[in-house]
Amino acid sequence: MSERKHVVIVGGGFGGLTCARALARADVDVTLIDRQNHHLFQPLLYQVAMAGLSPSEIAVPIRSIVRKQKNIGVLLAEVERIDLETRQVYYSPAPGDAPLSFDYLVLAPGARTHYFGHDDWELYAPGLKSIDDAVEIRRRVLLAFEAAEREIDPAKRAQLLSFVVIGGGPTGVEVAGAIAELARFALDRDFRVAKPYEARVLLIEAGPRVLPAFAPELAEKTVLQLAELGVHVRTGTMVDAIGPRGVRLQTGETLLADTVVWAAGVASSPLIRGLGGAVEMDRQGRAIVAKDCSLPGFPNTFVIGDAACFLGPDGRPLPGVSPTAMQMGRFVAGIIKQEVRSAAVSERPEFVYTDKGSMATIGRSRAVAETKGIKLSGLLAWLAWLLVHIWYLIGFRNRFVVFFDWAWSYFTYRRGARLITGGRLLPGAPEAHAYTSSHDQAHHHAAQ
Amino acid sequence: MSERKHVVIVGGGFGGLTCARALARADVDVTLIDRQNHHLFQPLLYQVAMAGLSPSEIAVPIRSIVRKQKNIGVLLAEVERIDLETRQVYYSPAPGDAPLSFDYLVLAPGARTHYFGHDDWELYAPGLKSIDDAVEIRRRVLLAFEAAEREIDPAKRAQLLSFVVIGGGPTGVEVAGAIAELARFALDRDFRVAKPYEARVLLIEAGPRVLPAFAPELAEKTVLQLAELGVHVRTGTMVDAIGPRGVRLQTGETLLADTVVWAAGVASSPLIRGLGGAVEMDRQGRAIVAKDCSLPGFPNTFVIGDAACFLGPDGRPLPGVSPTAMQMGRFVAGIIKQEVRSAAVSERPEFVYTDKGSMATIGRSRAVAETKGIKLSGLLAWLAWLLVHIWYLIGFRNRFVVFFDWAWSYFTYRRGARLITGGRLLPGAPEAHAYTSSHDQAHHHAAQ
Repeated sequence: MSERKHVVIVGGGFGGLTCARALARADVDVTLIDRQNHHLFQPLLYQVAMAGLSPSEIAVPIRSIVRKQKNIGVLLAEVERIDLETRQVYYSPAPGDAPLSFDYLVLAPGARTHYFGHDDWELYAPGLKSIDDAVEIRRRVLLAFEAAEREIDPAKRAQLLSFVVIGGGPTGVEVAGAIAELARFALDRDFRVAKPYEARVLLIEAGPRVLPAFAPELAEKTVLQLAELGVHVRTGTMVDAIGPRGVRLQTGETLLADTVVWAAGVASSPLIRGLGGAVEMDRQGRAIVAKDCSLPGFPNTFVIGDAACFLGPDGRPLPGVSPTAMQMGRFVAGIIKQEVRSAAVSERPEFVYTDKGSMATIGRSRAVAETKGIKLSGLLAWLAWLLVHIWYLIGFRNRFVVFFDWAWSYFTYRRGARLITGGRLLPGAPEAHAYTSSHDQAHHHAAQ
Repeated sequence: MSERKHVVIVGGGFGGLTCARALARADVDVTLIDRQNHHLFQPLLYQVAMAGLSPSEIAVPIRSIVRKQKNIGVLLAEVERIDLETRQVYYSPAPGDAPLSFDYLVLAPGARTHYFGHDDWELYAPGLKSIDDAVEIRRRVLLAFEAAEREIDPAKRAQLLSFVVIGGGPTGVEVAGAIAELARFALDRDFRVAKPYEARVLLIEAGPRVLPAFAPELAEKTVLQLAELGVHVRTGTMVDAIGPRGVRLQTGETLLADTVVWAAGVASSPLIRGLGGAVEMDRQGRAIVAKDCSLPGFPNTFVIGDAACFLGPDGRPLPGVSPTAMQMGRFVAGIIKQEVRSAAVSERPEFVYTDKGSMATIGRSRAVAETKGIKLSGLLAWLAWLLVHIWYLIGFRNRFVVFFDWAWSYFTYRRGARLITGGRLLPGAPEAHAYTSSHDQAHHHAAQ
C-alpha cells in the first residue's frame, strides 16, 4: 500500500534478529514474528539445563533488543501458512483475521528436536531447544538426585543416579560433561544418603566418534577429558527403544537409567515443509536455497539459518550453527537495503560463508576448539570458548554483568539456579519417573 | 531407637528453616521435609510476578542452605498423614513405605491461597504463593501486553490492558503498584501499537480501607501513592464472580479485564485440618496453639508460622508474617535444645512476640512503614524496606550480589526477567485468555 517496502522476518533467533538489526536504518518497515517473546542464546542453553545459569541470564525479550529501532514491530504469534505467490503470511492469533503482506520475506524459523520417527521417545528423553526444555531437563536431573536421597534400595538408587545422553555432537558432549560436573562438584555436599559422585553418565553416539565436525584428534581429546569427569563414551551404539526406565540398544543390551537426554537429531521447522511442492528440501526438511539465500523461483523470499540448506564450496551444506545464521542474516539485509536504495535491478551477490571455527565445552576448564587449522584443547580452549561466548551475547543484560555472574558461579558453584519448578515435583505422573511402577520389560543394567 | 532425639520439621519456609538452623549444634537429628526443593523469600515473590526479579534471585535450594549442618537431612516429599499418638509422619513418596518416627515434631507448613469456597476462581485469578504462581502471573501480565499489541479493536485492547487486583493487603498493594510501574516505565518503549501507559490497574478491597493492619493515615498515604502510579483503589467492594473476561461485583457492576490477580485470602495448609478432631482450629484452619507453641495435649508437637493461631496479649492472633514465623522457629528450637540438654522436666517458657513493625512497598521509592509508633511513607519508607529485605535474605546467593542486581535493575529496568515461559503462549487454552471466544454474559467496563 505505502511506498515503503515491508519486510517480514519469521523467527527471532540469531539469523532473524541479526537481519532485523541490520535493517535498522534501511528505508523499510520490518515486522518480526516469533512464537516466543525472547531471543535465546542457545549455545548456553545446556547451562540452564544443568542449573549453572538461570533462564533470564541467557534469554532476553525480543522487544527489548529492538526497542530503539523505530522501523520494527514485533509480533508474538505463530505463523500458520505462507502464500509465496500472493506474498501473504497467515499467523495466529490474528485479531482481524488479516494476513501480513510482504515485499520481502526472511524465513529464519530454526530447527526442532527430531526423533527419527520415534516421537514417543520425547516423553522419556527430552531434547534441548527451548527454555522450557532446559527447565524440564533441570527438573528431571535434580529430581533424580532427590529421589536417590529418599531411596533405600541401592540398586534403585544406582538407576536413579544413572544418566544417559544420546548424541555425541557438541550439545551431547556439553550436557554429559555438565551432568558429571554437577554431580561431582556442585551437589556433592548437599546430600546425605545419595552420593552424587557415584552418578554414572553415559554418552551414546551412533557414529564412529564424537564431534564428527571436529578433527579426529580433538574428538579423542574430548573423550579423554570426558573420562576425567567420569563420563563414559560409547560410539557406534544405536538406540532401539527408550522407556521410563532407560534405553534399549539395538544389540539388545539395556541401560537402566531414570534420566535420558536426547541430543541426537534436529530437523528444520515444519514451516518449511508447509511451503508446499514448489520448494525443494533436503533430508532434514531444510529448504535448499540459491546462492543468494533466496528460494529458487521466489527471489523475494529468503531462508536463513538452521532452516536453510546452503551448499558450500565443498558441496556439503553449511553447518547449523549461529555464525552461519548471523552471517546469512546480515547478507540478506544487505541485499534488501541495496534493492530498496536503487530501483535498478542488478545481479545479486553470492553468499560466502566465513568459517570462524568450531568449539565445544566439556566442563569448567575443559573444551576443544579449532579455527583456521589451529587446534586447542583443555584450559586454553575453554578460555577461548568463554571469551567468544561472552563477546557474542547479543543485547544481553550487559557483558560486564554476565561476566561477573559467571566469575561468581565459577568460584562458588552457585546454587540459586538449582531450582525445581513447574510440572509435578513428586513421582506418579509419567514425566516424573514413576520408579515404583512396574515396567513391562525386564531391564538389566549392563552399562558398566 | 538411638539415644539421640529425632526432630522432624515439616516445611522449609521462614519458620521451619529458622528452627532447623537454630538446632545446628543441638544433640539431635533433624529431618526437614518440604514439597519444594527451595526456600522462598516470599516477601519478594511479587517482584517475580512483575518481572522485576528472576526466580533464582529469591529462591534457593534448602539443601544448599543447610549443607554445612551435619545433623540435618532434607527430604523432598509430601507429608500425607501425621499420627500424633504414635508419633509417626507418613510421607510420599516413601520408598520403604516406612513412616518417620519423631521425638519432636515442628509443623511449619505455611498458608495457601484461599478462595472462600469459590475454587473455580483460581483459573481466572491466580494467587501468589509459590514460584510457579509468580511465573504464571508474570506470563499472564506479559501476554496481555503482547495480545494488546496484536489487537486492532480499541475496546478489546482496553480490556487486555485492564488489570484487576483483588485484596488490599500488603500483597495486593505491592502487585497493583508493580503492574502500574511495569506498564509505565518498563514496557513503555517496547510496544508500537499497544500503549502500556494506558493500562488501567484497579485494586479492589472488600473492607473499608487498604492495609487494615497499618495505621489509618498510612492507608491513606498508600492510596495517594498508588494514585500517583495510576492505580485506582476501590474499597468496600465485594466480588460476586470471576470469569475469563473479568470480575462481576456484588453490585452487579462488571469490570472487564483479561488479567485478574487474587490477593484476598489465605488459609492454613490442609495438613492442620488432617490432624483430626484432637486439634482445635480457628476459622482460617490454623491450629490454636498453647503459650509454648505446642498443640494442647501434645507437648512434643509444635505448630509455628502461618499455620499457627497464637493469641497475642491483645487477644488477637499474631500476624501471619515472616518475623512471627522466624521468632517462633527460634523459640521452639530453644525449648527442644533445653529439654535435650537436661532430662529434668521444667516449666516451659512462654513465647513472646516482638513486633518489629510492618512495611509494604508500593513501587520504586514508594512505601509505607511503621515501627514502634514511628510512621514513614514515601522514599524514606522505601529505603527502610529495601534495607530490611536485603538484610533478611536468609542464605541467599550473597547479600552483595543481590544488592548489586537490584541496584542494576533500579537504574536499567532490567529486561532479562521479563521472560514468558511455560504453559501455552498463544490464546486458545483456557488459561491463556481466549479473548476471541464468546462469553455467556454481557460485560461492560464500568470501572473508569
